[in-house]
Amino acid sequence: MDYAAAALELHRAHRGKIEIRGKVAVRTRDDLSTAYTPGVAEPCRRIAAEPEAVWEYTARGNMVAVVTDGSAVLGLGDIGPLAALPVMEGKALLFKEFGGVDAVPLCLDTKDPDEIVAAVKAAAPSFGGINLEDISAPRCFEIERRLAEALDIPVFHDDQHGTAIVVSAALTNALRLTGRELSESRIVINGPGAAGTAICRMLLDLGAHDVVVCDRRGAICAGREGLSGHKAELAALTNPRGAAGSLADVLRGADVFIGVSSGGLVTGDMVRSMADRPIVFAMANPTPEIGYGEAVAAGAYVAGTGRSDFPNQINNVLAFPGVFRGALDARSREINAAMKAAAVRALADFAGGKLDREHIIPGAFEPGVAAAVAKAVAAAARESGAARA
Amino acid sequence: MDYAAAALELHRAHRGKIEIRGKVAVRTRDDLSTAYTPGVAEPCRRIAAEPEAVWEYTARGNMVAVVTDGSAVLGLGDIGPLAALPVMEGKALLFKEFGGVDAVPLCLDTKDPDEIVAAVKAAAPSFGGINLEDISAPRCFEIERRLAEALDIPVFHDDQHGTAIVVSAALTNALRLTGRELSESRIVINGPGAAGTAICRMLLDLGAHDVVVCDRRGAICAGREGLSGHKAELAALTNPRGAAGSLADVLRGADVFIGVSSGGLVTGDMVRSMADRPIVFAMANPTPEIGYGEAVAAGAYVAGTGRSDFPNQINNVLAFPGVFRGALDARSREINAAMKAAAVRALADFAGGKLDREHIIPGAFEPGVAAAVAKAVAAAARESGAARA
Repeated sequence: MDYAAAALELHRAHRGKIEIRGKVAVRTRDDLSTAYTPGVAEPCRRIAAEPEAVWEYTARGNMVAVVTDGSAVLGLGDIGPLAALPVMEGKALLFKEFGGVDAVPLCLDTKDPDEIVAAVKAAAPSFGGINLEDISAPRCFEIERRLAEALDIPVFHDDQHGTAIVVSAALTNALRLTGRELSESRIVINGPGAAGTAICRMLLDLGAHDVVVCDRRGAICAGREGLSGHKAELAALTNPRGAAGSLADVLRGADVFIGVSSGGLVTGDMVRSMADRPIVFAMANPTPEIGYGEAVAAGAYVAGTGRSDFPNQINNVLAFPGVFRGALDARSREINAAMKAAAVRALADFAGGKLDREHIIPGAFEPGVAAAVAKAVAAAARESGAARA
Repeated sequence: MDYAAAALELHRAHRGKIEIRGKVAVRTRDDLSTAYTPGVAEPCRRIAAEPEAVWEYTARGNMVAVVTDGSAVLGLGDIGPLAALPVMEGKALLFKEFGGVDAVPLCLDTKDPDEIVAAVKAAAPSFGGINLEDISAPRCFEIERRLAEALDIPVFHDDQHGTAIVVSAALTNALRLTGRELSESRIVINGPGAAGTAICRMLLDLGAHDVVVCDRRGAICAGREGLSGHKAELAALTNPRGAAGSLADVLRGADVFIGVSSGGLVTGDMVRSMADRPIVFAMANPTPEIGYGEAVAAGAYVAGTGRSDFPNQINNVLAFPGVFRGALDARSREINAAMKAAAVRALADFAGGKLDREHIIPGAFEPGVAAAVAKAVAAAARESGAARA
């Protein structure tokens, strides 16, 4: 199927992918007087007197802003806010279809972190959560941190945490299949951007010790010249053995490869140089770091990619609808580490029932995935004190 | 009917009044690959290459932001952005029901004009139009002007221009019934806020000469002490006879009263002091400046209020859905004076077919009102060079 041509046709025929719908009828004067003036004044008064009533009387509690500046869209890069709109509408579509979440694209005409933070803070009263999307590193880290501090609703950069949740769940099950412990595994992550950084931090949170992150120059390690910002932070957090050298160098003997970089960077020989029964997640899109078939042929015991046409698709749609569904159901003030860890466990357990080398995570359309994630996330929100309900 | 109780029940039962819906299905991998990755990259590329393609491939061309800071909501005043949300959702509901326009509430957590302008400018790439709502005067004037200058999409403060359009249409027909010309009529407007100021400016644009605007202290006239800002501008634009004194003073001999102020300010005696066959539009909500029945009893030949339970309801819902529908259909860069005047004529003509004292404007539910307004507005956008399509 020619997805590019089909996508052009679909987008043009429908003029985009989302619309606003009323949940109540307006066919009579009484309808108008109840949904609008004069009746509407009463819920307004209730909220003015008691702000928490906003969750009872408005759509805020199910409404999420999908915020981008269009600076890191798919593999297309910095295409700007207008050109990012089809992706954000797609995200909104998936939010509704998979999670029952109402999501609105907010494509921002600025790349300045101060202005992005100010715009999102200003718009926050309309939303029960903020999903940051396709904002380039390292600005995405600062923007998320500042918004999370400023707002009392969840702020979640999906490229970071959605990806990290799905990768962590997939890795949990892959390690189970290969009889390894996370804490004893040697893990190499290629690509220190938003996704790679978040995956690294989450795996450390979950108990990993030996993680090496590589950029184009090779392993990031303490003492490497010219490191600054979030790479310097990664150097301080990771690489306890002080591994140096190229990706090929550090992959030798590694148990796990996680690629969030560019197509074709990993060869069969590099996979063969890894430890026995290696795990290879090659998630560059649309061309993986190494193809699924080639990875398996080179000895990968478990392989995964970002593609839907091979087994073990590591796909954010497994996480974000359920994560926000759970956070909104609990009226959570945030999406904290406990909630993310609960999502990882729920996803891993969901696939665990029929675990095998070609099914380490659920497929995107397996019924019940988002609901299982949501239930776990909402419970974790309540246990961790982040929930209002 | 107890609208307050019904409204509470309705809002709570549905958790607000609007939702996001997908316009395309996502049931298969092919659906996912067409509406989302990898297919979605193609419309993104097209828009990156040619920004005008955003109107073809996204929902932007039918999407309007309903922007407020919650500073002047209904008769409730400055209740803030959270408490304003039920009204903005109601507005979005009416936009869809009457105009087929997708509208999203953006309730802003700031009253600073600079911050409001910055937030709306930042969010503009997602929207084909900006409807400003319930922002208090005089900030609303500056905010609208600055946004209209900065953006290449329509910016329309409904409390100003929507009200002005409907009042002007109603007045056109009332003058027709009473055999007067606008240019020769003595008009008194009580309330120099957003609505009163816009009504005044529009009537002057349409050919009125003798307009006197009153505030709580009486007639605004050149030389009155302590006038500044937009009241000083009104003094320069209006009141050619230099009328001074109280509302009661200036109403003596007037042909038209237009009230956008507070309930109960006009007595039967004041109506009796007006010219023969006076026109009285008493639009304070929920209590008019003078009740419909009392005005008619005191000799008003045509009376109108903002209420749905009396004839001649002067209701913004007659204007904004059609105005935006027309502006969006023409992909207009603005909503200019010609487009507003076209809306006035279309509304007046629509009611003109069965014109009488109790039917000077269409009812809210008369079929075809918004379509008639939209057609006229789109044509005016094209004739005035504001249209892209």
